[in-house]
Amino acid sequence: MERILNIDTVKYVGKEAKVCGWVNTRRDHGGIVFLDLRDRSGILQIVSESKLAQEIKEEYAVEVEGKVQERPAKMVNAELATGKIELKAEKIKVLAAAESLPFDLKDLKVSLPTLLDWRPLTLRNQKIKAIFKIQEQVIESFRKTLKSLDFTEFESPLIVPTTAEGGAEVFHIDYYHHDAYLSQSPQLYKQILVPVFERVSTVTHVFRAEPSVTTRHLSEYISLDAEMSFIDSWEELMDTCEIVIRNIFSDLKKKYQIAVPKLTEKIPRLKMREAQQIVFERTGRDNRKEMDLEPEDERDICSWAEEKYGSELIFITHYPTKKRPFYTFADPQDPDYTLSFDLLCRGLEVVTGGQRINEYGELVKNIKKWGSNLQNFKFYLQTFKYGMPPEGGFAIGTERLVKQILGLANVREASLFPRDMIRVDQRLSVLQKKKKKK
Amino acid sequence: MERILNIDTVKYVGKEAKVCGWVNTRRDHGGIVFLDLRDRSGILQIVSESKLAQEIKEEYAVEVEGKVQERPAKMVNAELATGKIELKAEKIKVLAAAESLPFDLKDLKVSLPTLLDWRPLTLRNQKIKAIFKIQEQVIESFRKTLKSLDFTEFESPLIVPTTAEGGAEVFHIDYYHHDAYLSQSPQLYKQILVPVFERVSTVTHVFRAEPSVTTRHLSEYISLDAEMSFIDSWEELMDTCEIVIRNIFSDLKKKYQIAVPKLTEKIPRLKMREAQQIVFERTGRDNRKEMDLEPEDERDICSWAEEKYGSELIFITHYPTKKRPFYTFADPQDPDYTLSFDLLCRGLEVVTGGQRINEYGELVKNIKKWGSNLQNFKFYLQTFKYGMPPEGGFAIGTERLVKQILGLANVREASLFPRDMIRVDQRLSVLQKKKKKK
Repeated sequence: MERILNIDTVKYVGKEAKVCGWVNTRRDHGGIVFLDLRDRSGILQIVSESKLAQEIKEEYAVEVEGKVQERPAKMVNAELATGKIELKAEKIKVLAAAESLPFDLKDLKVSLPTLLDWRPLTLRNQKIKAIFKIQEQVIESFRKTLKSLDFTEFESPLIVPTTAEGGAEVFHIDYYHHDAYLSQSPQLYKQILVPVFERVSTVTHVFRAEPSVTTRHLSEYISLDAEMSFIDSWEELMDTCEIVIRNIFSDLKKKYQIAVPKLTEKIPRLKMREAQQIVFERTGRDNRKEMDLEPEDERDICSWAEEKYGSELIFITHYPTKKRPFYTFADPQDPDYTLSFDLLCRGLEVVTGGQRINEYGELVKNIKKWGSNLQNFKFYLQTFKYGMPPEGGFAIGTERLVKQILGLANVREASLFPRDMIRVDQRLSVLQKKKKKK
Repeated sequence: MERILNIDTVKYVGKEAKVCGWVNTRRDHGGIVFLDLRDRSGILQIVSESKLAQEIKEEYAVEVEGKVQERPAKMVNAELATGKIELKAEKIKVLAAAESLPFDLKDLKVSLPTLLDWRPLTLRNQKIKAIFKIQEQVIESFRKTLKSLDFTEFESPLIVPTTAEGGAEVFHIDYYHHDAYLSQSPQLYKQILVPVFERVSTVTHVFRAEPSVTTRHLSEYISLDAEMSFIDSWEELMDTCEIVIRNIFSDLKKKYQIAVPKLTEKIPRLKMREAQQIVFERTGRDNRKEMDLEPEDERDICSWAEEKYGSELIFITHYPTKKRPFYTFADPQDPDYTLSFDLLCRGLEVVTGGQRINEYGELVKNIKKWGSNLQNFKFYLQTFKYGMPPEGGFAIGTERLVKQILGLANVREASLFPRDMIRVDQRLSVLQKKKKKK
């Protein structure tokens, strides 16, 4: 007999069927055992009177053959797609046994460190697993939207010879006795590909050697990156970003019935200095001279936008030139500020973007001004020597966006296998200490 | 006036239009200048009598307004989608100038090192650019096929605490004063996710510190990975792989009219020892005691398969246990060999896969036998302590597959920004030497 999925047993009432899966729960009613069998399609109730069923524990992988039957009316479970039926087991085969679980996997009440120590196991919890179906959909919607807008998707290299974003927060690699680094951003490669494909996108990993542990930083995260040329105005970048975000939200709503963040007809756009002024007026906190928004400011300005516009998202624009990477385009009307933006969602930055310098001479000047070695940018600079039109782009932080959509407390919950300064799967403290260099 | 794409000008005959793009070629017929303008949709001929047009060189980024008109009959270019029309320029705006090109970009006759030194520029060549549209399609077809087979796509972490494949060919990362490595394979994470999603796939980067330069190895490449559980037989893995490959080929044929490798109704399957015997009989080269196929053997056995079956692909199975990673499932009938396979295409391995050990005790035994530190696999081993059913998977080498489909001489040609022991964008010899450790 061929195995069918749990969800398909509803078409087998009165017939024989074979299913496979993991034992999600097990209830023993004195001789009669009820197993909730979990497979990729969902849960199916198995009823068995066999002795073997009494030995089976949660997370056993089993194969069950038997007859599909309707449940007694009072036993119907309206919350399950298979809630009206059950499989009366005739043959159970244990494919793999499981030890006793260290905690209740269905009703998880463990701290975040424990949750992550036991990640291979805790990911099997249905609510936690669902986070990563949401993540999968976010990425798919990003991809689908940009494809419909004629972007070419490419794979950005992750071993890089130099650091695009500057700063010390970069991981060093021993690369054949030379220095190389883990990519902090696909920025340079996106731009190189502009004159090749005109519009490009990539789903890529980026790496930041964050020197502290916060609820919103990861050492490795998934960046959804886009770059487009022949723009008439840098505002087109925000327009495109907005289309992507809207599609992500509407796909999630359709597919997973999630209460996504509220959007109005157009996401409000506000200069950073204006945002600081509003925060000052609302809270008395005077950050008007700061070069960036503080996490608290981001939360306050989002509250303001929700009150004023009914929008849980807001674009903050015109960040100071000094605080942005060397390639950022300065506002011709006020060169101390850039044609750049962040998108805040429910109090947290989830997207960053802006127009880039496309003129060779300007770019060279800035690389020097930012204190970088020009030689290391020779490859990248080819692009600008040979016709680079006005262009720009943006990058979505996937885990942050998922965190904000689902209202998770910590970005680590939105990362399958979060990496930070104290953990790579296991806690660093339990792994081997750094070996001496040869 | 709003900019339209080159391809859309065919709907504007007799009307005004504005286009943007790069000057692909420029022909000066004494006062009248013909520009082939390249944008993401294709090429459009611009005619201009202006002085500015005479200054414009190849790879200038320009914006042109003018009237779309039919070409004289003898000027029609049947090879272009816009070959019956041209744009008579009224206004040309230079968006970005270009220096004189270092070589003829349209008729590239440079060595591979030069091609790669100038990658940002040489990627603009239409034939080279097309390689990466093919790559994009290969990845998209992989993704689409596995989605239709109910696989969940995930993002595999690239900073890893231990090496899955063993061996010295691993890049070391300075990770907050601990040892970490660049992922050689998403293998462990695919397996961890099997009891979560049952079937998983990922498009990921993998890293190999290859100690030599060959035409088929890269230090960073794109792996298309799949893993599936509740298999009745390891041959199902090859069946699934075959579905993926067929879909890739048929999508490429449909979309890009490419002469893809010949497939018969079923890809032939042959044990490694049988392949060595056939090669010996055909060529007299006796590699029958070798533990792996030599590159020469791979080419010879592919010739044989094409002659005998008319297939340019062949599965080679049952590689020796000693030569495969610790997690590979040994053939119960002959434990010196594994239930593993490679798929060869036109003489080169492009896929590797097999069934995995799913029993906890067996796996622990093998980790020890392979000389690894059990402590480093504690996280991974959780999966096997709690119900891991029979499962397996495969990994497609994207650049190799594209190389073989297009008949490229070197796998570097199929990598946008190839990394190897002598190059990361620029040649290592011209980059900064390794800095002293602090």
